[in-house]
Amino acid sequence: MKAIYLDNNATTRVAPAVVEEMTPYFSEYYGNPSSMHTFGGMLGKKIVEAREKVADLINADPDEIIFTSCGTESDSTAIYAALQSYPKKRHIITTRVEHPAVKNLCEHLAKTGYRVSWVPVDREGRLDIDYLYDHMADDTAIISVMWANNETGVIFPVEQVAHAAAERGIVFHTDAVQAGGKVPVDVRKSNVSMLSLSGHKFHGPKGVGVLYVKKGTKFAPFLIGGHQEKGRRGGTENVASIIGLGKAAGMAKKELGSEMDRVRGLRDRLEAHILENIPNTLLNGSRENRLPNTLSVSFEYVEGESILLMLDQLGICASSGSACTSGTLEPSHVLRALGVPFTAAHGSIRFSLSTYTTREEIDVVCEQMPPLIERLRTMSPFWKKEASCSIL
Amino acid sequence: MKAIYLDNNATTRVAPAVVEEMTPYFSEYYGNPSSMHTFGGMLGKKIVEAREKVADLINADPDEIIFTSCGTESDSTAIYAALQSYPKKRHIITTRVEHPAVKNLCEHLAKTGYRVSWVPVDREGRLDIDYLYDHMADDTAIISVMWANNETGVIFPVEQVAHAAAERGIVFHTDAVQAGGKVPVDVRKSNVSMLSLSGHKFHGPKGVGVLYVKKGTKFAPFLIGGHQEKGRRGGTENVASIIGLGKAAGMAKKELGSEMDRVRGLRDRLEAHILENIPNTLLNGSRENRLPNTLSVSFEYVEGESILLMLDQLGICASSGSACTSGTLEPSHVLRALGVPFTAAHGSIRFSLSTYTTREEIDVVCEQMPPLIERLRTMSPFWKKEASCSIL
Repeated sequence: MKAIYLDNNATTRVAPAVVEEMTPYFSEYYGNPSSMHTFGGMLGKKIVEAREKVADLINADPDEIIFTSCGTESDSTAIYAALQSYPKKRHIITTRVEHPAVKNLCEHLAKTGYRVSWVPVDREGRLDIDYLYDHMADDTAIISVMWANNETGVIFPVEQVAHAAAERGIVFHTDAVQAGGKVPVDVRKSNVSMLSLSGHKFHGPKGVGVLYVKKGTKFAPFLIGGHQEKGRRGGTENVASIIGLGKAAGMAKKELGSEMDRVRGLRDRLEAHILENIPNTLLNGSRENRLPNTLSVSFEYVEGESILLMLDQLGICASSGSACTSGTLEPSHVLRALGVPFTAAHGSIRFSLSTYTTREEIDVVCEQMPPLIERLRTMSPFWKKEASCSIL
Repeated sequence: MKAIYLDNNATTRVAPAVVEEMTPYFSEYYGNPSSMHTFGGMLGKKIVEAREKVADLINADPDEIIFTSCGTESDSTAIYAALQSYPKKRHIITTRVEHPAVKNLCEHLAKTGYRVSWVPVDREGRLDIDYLYDHMADDTAIISVMWANNETGVIFPVEQVAHAAAERGIVFHTDAVQAGGKVPVDVRKSNVSMLSLSGHKFHGPKGVGVLYVKKGTKFAPFLIGGHQEKGRRGGTENVASIIGLGKAAGMAKKELGSEMDRVRGLRDRLEAHILENIPNTLLNGSRENRLPNTLSVSFEYVEGESILLMLDQLGICASSGSACTSGTLEPSHVLRALGVPFTAAHGSIRFSLSTYTTREEIDVVCEQMPPLIERLRTMSPFWKKEASCSIL
C-alpha cells in the first residue's frame, strides 16, 4: 500500500530530479572544492550555481547566502551572531509559537542571563504586534519571529516587524523554514537582517540549510573552522546536498504560482469536508493568513495519538499538534499559546500537503476521516458524557 | 583522462555501496524519524543500525554516538560542552598542529578570555608530551589533541595523554577525523572522553559527522533545538547520510587490516621512489608513527603550488602542505610547527591514498615526479644559485 503522505511540514520527498542532480557528486565528482586541483576545484562552480539559485528563490544576493547543515543551525547561527556582535545588549524578543530551534535556544539563553520577551498570539494564532513593539528596548540584540508557523501554518507580518526593528536599529531574524518554497519570500522587500531555510522542507535533501545574512549585518560565525563560506561557516562543503538544494530552490520558485494554488485548493477541499462532516471540530489558526499546504484541526474529545494510529493503519501519514514524540502527552506549546480549549487541544491533527499530493489522495482522506473520528468518539468516555449532556 | 586521486585526506570517494544504501532514503523512504506514523518511524530503526555500526568501528556503546553534520561541528560541540560543563575552568590545552576546526576555535576562545596552551611538536612532528603534562592545571577544562595529523599523518600518543588527563580529572577530546577508518581507533582502550569523526574521510558522504561522548562525561548540546539525538543535537536527522555513514563505517572496519597494509605498501613505494630519485627532498613527519595512507614531502627550492599545477595537468590530484587555498603563500602552521626549513616548506606536497588507489596509479606518479621536479627546479632562480654554490 502506497502511503498517502500528508506530513510535509515534517519533511518532504526529495524530488527525483534533485536526486538525479546530486548523484554524480558522490562517487564520480567527489572532490573537495577547497583543493588546488581541477577535480576538486571545479566543484566550486557548482556551488556558485547552487548559491545563485537559492539567492534567486528569496531575492537575495548570492554573497548573502551561507550554506549550513539545517534550519536549526541557521537559527542558532543567526541568534548567536547578533548576541556576539552586540555583547552589551542582553535582550531578545521572540514569539510563544516558535519552532524548538528558536524556542529552546531562547529558553537556554534566558537561563544564562539574557532577558527574553515572548510575544503572545491570539486565538487565531495572530501575533500581538503591539506587545512586540512595546517590548523593543535599547538593549534588544535581536528580534526573531518566524515567517510561518510549522503547526498551524499561520503567516506572521514579518515585513511590518522587520521594518519596525530596522527603524530602531535592531537585528531582525526570521525562521522561514516552513515558508520557503511554499509562499513568496522576498528578503529585499521584507527587509529582514537574517533568514533561515531548510532544504528538506521543499523537496531538497535533509542535512543542508541556508542562512541569509543581509549585507552590512554584523556577523560572527557559529561553526568556527576552515575558510569555507568566506569564513562564515567552517566545515567541508556538503557538495552533493548543496547542489541538490540549488535544484530544489529552482524548482520551488517555479511552483510558487499555479502549483501552490492547486495545493491550496486540495487543502481547502479537505478542510471544508472535515469541518462540514465532523461535528465538534475546530480549525486552528487564521484561515486567511496561512501557508497554502497546511491544515491544523482539533477534534474534541479524542486523542490525536489515537487518530494518528488509525490513520497510519490506513496508510495515511499526518502529525499530531501535540508533542507526542518527545514523550509527553501535553498539547504543544503552539496550541497552548493559541488557547485551544483543553477538550480539543489533545485531539489536534496537522495535515500538510505538497506538490506530490493528488486529488485522489485527498478524496481518500475526506472519505476516511468522518467514520474514523466517529469510531474513536464512540470509545471515548468524555464524548459520551458530552453527548449525554447535549441530550439533556 | 581519469584522475589519479591522491588527495584522500581532503575528501574521499563515496563508496558505490554506500550510495546504493543511501539512495532509497531520498525519494522513496523520505520520512522524518520523529513522526508518529510507520512511514517516518521505521527510519528510526535504520538510524539505530547505523549508530551500531559506527559504534562498532571505534568500540563504543551506540548510546555514546551523536550524529553531527561534520568533523568541525563535532570538534566545536566537544570543546564547548567541556567549557559549559566547567564554567569556572578557563584553561584549554591543545597542540600547534591541530586542524583549523580546533585551532581556529581555540584562537577565538583565547580572544574571549580563555587561556590556551599550545603544545609544540619536534622536527618529526612528535608531540612534546612533557610540555603538555607541565601545563595541566587545576583550571584546565579540556585537552584536545588530534589522533593523527591531517598534513603529515603523524599519529599522536592519544592513549597516554588521555589516561594522564583522566588521572587529573580533565576532559580529553581527540579529533580523530583523519584516523577513523585508517588505523584502529578504540575509545575504551584509549580512554578518551570525546572523539570526532567525519564521514567523508572514509568513503561516507560529506555533511555527516560523529561525536563520541563517553558515558559519564558532562555534556551540553551545541545545537539546541528539537529532541533528536536524545536532546544532545537538535535538527532533523540527516537520514540518508547517517545510513550511508553506517555502511561506510562497516566497510572501513573490514579494511583496517590487510587492505590498509596494501595501501601502506603503495605509500611506502611512492615515498621510497621519490626520496631515492629526487635530490634535496625531505620527508615531513615521523616515518614510524604515521597513517598508512599519508606521505608529506618537501622539495627544496620549488613552490608547492607549481608542483600541484603541473600534477593537475597530468591528472594527478594531490595537495600542498601550504595554505594556498586561504589566499596566502605562507607555509602551513603544521609545517612551521615542525620547523621544516624555509627552503623546503614552500615546496611541500601531501599525497594521501585510499582503498581505491592502485599500483598502476602509483607507478605513474613515481614516473612523473622526478622529471616534473627537475623541470621546475631548472626554472627556479633559487635552485640555480644552490646548484652553482654546490659546484663552487
